[in-house]
Amino acid sequence: MSRTKVALIVGAGDGLGGAIARKFAREGLTACVVRRKKESLHKLVDEIEQAGGKVVPYGADFRDEDQAVNLIQEIESNVGPIDVAVHNIGANVNFKIGDTSSRVYRKVWEMACLSGFHMGREVSKVMVQRQSGAVFFTGATASLRGGSGFSAFSGAKFALRSLSQSMARELHPQGIHVAHVVCDGAIDTPWIQENFKHLVDKVGPDGIMDPDAVAENYWHLYNQPKCAWTQELDIRPYMEKF
Amino acid sequence: MSRTKVALIVGAGDGLGGAIARKFAREGLTACVVRRKKESLHKLVDEIEQAGGKVVPYGADFRDEDQAVNLIQEIESNVGPIDVAVHNIGANVNFKIGDTSSRVYRKVWEMACLSGFHMGREVSKVMVQRQSGAVFFTGATASLRGGSGFSAFSGAKFALRSLSQSMARELHPQGIHVAHVVCDGAIDTPWIQENFKHLVDKVGPDGIMDPDAVAENYWHLYNQPKCAWTQELDIRPYMEKF
Amino acid sequence: MSRTKVALIVGAGDGLGGAIARKFAREGLTACVVRRKKESLHKLVDEIEQAGGKVVPYGADFRDEDQAVNLIQEIESNVGPIDVAVHNIGANVNFKIGDTSSRVYRKVWEMACLSGFHMGREVSKVMVQRQSGAVFFTGATASLRGGSGFSAFSGAKFALRSLSQSMARELHPQGIHVAHVVCDGAIDTPWIQENFKHLVDKVGPDGIMDPDAVAENYWHLYNQPKCAWTQELDIRPYMEKF
Amino acid sequence: MSRTKVALIVGAGDGLGGAIARKFAREGLTACVVRRKKESLHKLVDEIEQAGGKVVPYGADFRDEDQAVNLIQEIESNVGPIDVAVHNIGANVNFKIGDTSSRVYRKVWEMACLSGFHMGREVSKVMVQRQSGAVFFTGATASLRGGSGFSAFSGAKFALRSLSQSMARELHPQGIHVAHVVCDGAIDTPWIQENFKHLVDKVGPDGIMDPDAVAENYWHLYNQPKCAWTQELDIRPYMEKF
Repeated sequence: MSRTKVALIVGAGDGLGGAIARKFAREGLTACVVRRKKESLHKLVDEIEQAGGKVVPYGADFRDEDQAVNLIQEIESNVGPIDVAVHNIGANVNFKIGDTSSRVYRKVWEMACLSGFHMGREVSKVMVQRQSGAVFFTGATASLRGGSGFSAFSGAKFALRSLSQSMARELHPQGIHVAHVVCDGAIDTPWIQENFKHLVDKVGPDGIMDPDAVAENYWHLYNQPKCAWTQELDIRPYMEKF
Repeated sequence: MSRTKVALIVGAGDGLGGAIARKFAREGLTACVVRRKKESLHKLVDEIEQAGGKVVPYGADFRDEDQAVNLIQEIESNVGPIDVAVHNIGANVNFKIGDTSSRVYRKVWEMACLSGFHMGREVSKVMVQRQSGAVFFTGATASLRGGSGFSAFSGAKFALRSLSQSMARELHPQGIHVAHVVCDGAIDTPWIQENFKHLVDKVGPDGIMDPDAVAENYWHLYNQPKCAWTQELDIRPYMEKF
Repeated sequence: MSRTKVALIVGAGDGLGGAIARKFAREGLTACVVRRKKESLHKLVDEIEQAGGKVVPYGADFRDEDQAVNLIQEIESNVGPIDVAVHNIGANVNFKIGDTSSRVYRKVWEMACLSGFHMGREVSKVMVQRQSGAVFFTGATASLRGGSGFSAFSGAKFALRSLSQSMARELHPQGIHVAHVVCDGAIDTPWIQENFKHLVDKVGPDGIMDPDAVAENYWHLYNQPKCAWTQELDIRPYMEKF
Repeated sequence: MSRTKVALIVGAGDGLGGAIARKFAREGLTACVVRRKKESLHKLVDEIEQAGGKVVPYGADFRDEDQAVNLIQEIESNVGPIDVAVHNIGANVNFKIGDTSSRVYRKVWEMACLSGFHMGREVSKVMVQRQSGAVFFTGATASLRGGSGFSAFSGAKFALRSLSQSMARELHPQGIHVAHVVCDGAIDTPWIQENFKHLVDKVGPDGIMDPDAVAENYWHLYNQPKCAWTQELDIRPYMEKF
């Protein structure tokens, strides 16, 4: 495999993560895609390869520091320099505060925040040496406001947004672009279509975010020259209340 | 003149406004460019026309309701439907609170905010009929925080940001995209180069925002499909403190 | 009249403004209360005097720079040093953006913001000489977010909040305390009781803000020592959605 | 011991936590004060008792769910109903992102956030049954913005602020007051006096927050009637940059 630039997507699921991988692969980067189970990446790998793109699938759990460290080292050594890394792991749960177990509270934070810290820290180490690179985090409505029933999820997303800001303030001057994309609304995925069909039908074709449309924004951010970087933007369907 | 789509740029100066006009003209829209004095648009008109773009210059003061109403009607009647309107008028002054005259406080608000209200209200009236269109406002650091010496300027920019939010919440469901672009830092203009040369030299080539680079973000916003609209984004050079 | 410390309340209406005046008078300050029409202050003056407090009523329109300048000079010369000034003028209107006339947009800004600038600038001039004093502004939900139909009101309230921030950053180091109180919800006034009786009944006795309860917060702010100043706080009834 | 109302202070250290305990005890509540090591509470217990207040010291680590659950049950059973609970545990560390170990990142979150979740969830369970009570969290500058070197601390403080918001939106309608106090600046403690003496001398007597002055704000919040609750306020010395 030639050493093209690498786009690392941690959380390359059926929705936005996969769309981001497809977009960056279509534009010529090698997409290194990660889910906890490697076998769940088959469909995505097929799509990218059939479109002529380069893709390498990995099974890894970024809640675990060692797995994150090892995978990033493996990619840097054997695939190519990671030029952009995207963290796209959600963990949206809703429990009343009294019904939120410590175990759930911790697990949601590990999935939605700690994994992002592991990714961000490790890729920024190699990027700082090159004085170049981009690190993007996917946010949600819960990144901006706590809500009834969202103690766990919102706590994790607030912390992830804080990570994005702290990294940006430290790493922008070193040439690393750090941005946070607030997706304020539902993203069109097979899971949403199955479980919320009545809502999807109600809002109509543009009332829910098309993952490919959202992915264009990550590509736009990636192409910003260093004199004009965006640190945060929000995205929502035209009819979403906010 | 064929009835192509129109991009209206109110405040098409030597920096960002002109760059936005050039970008939209390059992409095939007719740029209707406005400054208070029509003759100050000569250079911009030449640049756009030499690049093969369509441009119509206007002298108008958008602080005046009638001039705003009449100009937008004139463009809609004689040039084409306004598909995107950009408000790009600043009025950055710095006075201690005790030295800020009522006249200055009012004038800064009229320039940086009231003109935006006139533009936004009038274009949204025609856009609502078409259930389509985009209205973009240019913000600044002062849109997000008041600062010592910035009572007047920050007051106007806060109010303009509020206008963008109020319009978005009312007009998004009607198919009109309203966005606010926070430019957090200096934009490279002849005026900056002349008056702050030492600062420009100090921060180096990417330490100040290239207007053409910033303009790309307005084009990106304009191309967002209605399932994935951005309401606000920030832009700053990589080494800007924030 | 002995030269006690003065509390100036601009916008001393039937709701919060009057309650703040009563509170500060009860605590021993001379309440200088201002409305556009002096005769509308009769009831408030009676209440304060019957409770043993000192009060001086004034008719003045703070949208007019000269009236503000003259009144503050008059109070400083003839009543006593203004130790705390409170701006409490709202102008809550709701119009669709397309139905908002330039005249209304401007008038709302003049009432809710420009009058606050005039008050803040003039009292801070005398306070700076004394290196002591407090300036408080009353905000609303619309100070924090623009909303459909609130282009005018929210614009003015955003600008007022910006004024509070700019003044705080300039004047705190000079010993002047500047704070902004966001009242997020309805305040119990005769007008609300008459016009929204069904809503008042629906939310019950604690579902609407008691002006006297809110006024306690202004007194609390006034008593903060300079090592521990609050710049902004929000207040809302327990059952208010936010 | 008579069953007076209880104020629970988790993190009753030498600075703000201790001052809050003293204040609530002085006002007649029984202060149940918690630190990880019970013996470090000797001085505080002496101070409160000598002033005629009631105090019960506990050693417990609120990072541990069981310890939190058991202690709150113990207090409710044997001392009295917890009418107000204050979380006041910081964990301010500063490491470059590349030098932040996963262990530190997790530990800071457990100390500054997870312990607050345990306290907030458990006390709110008993308060909801009484439809009454107050839960206050102490925030910091890092609650509002991420900063270079603050990935761990700011992440935890953002998450704690999110908890405060989520709990407020769920529990306010049930009669539980939830508030978040942002202490933006240094608090005067023996530790600060020893380690930052030059800074303390430089800013002068009011340039650093007196814990007792800050504690007054918690008492003020506690006394707000349910028609006028504050969810968030900031506090800083007059000369603090912000």
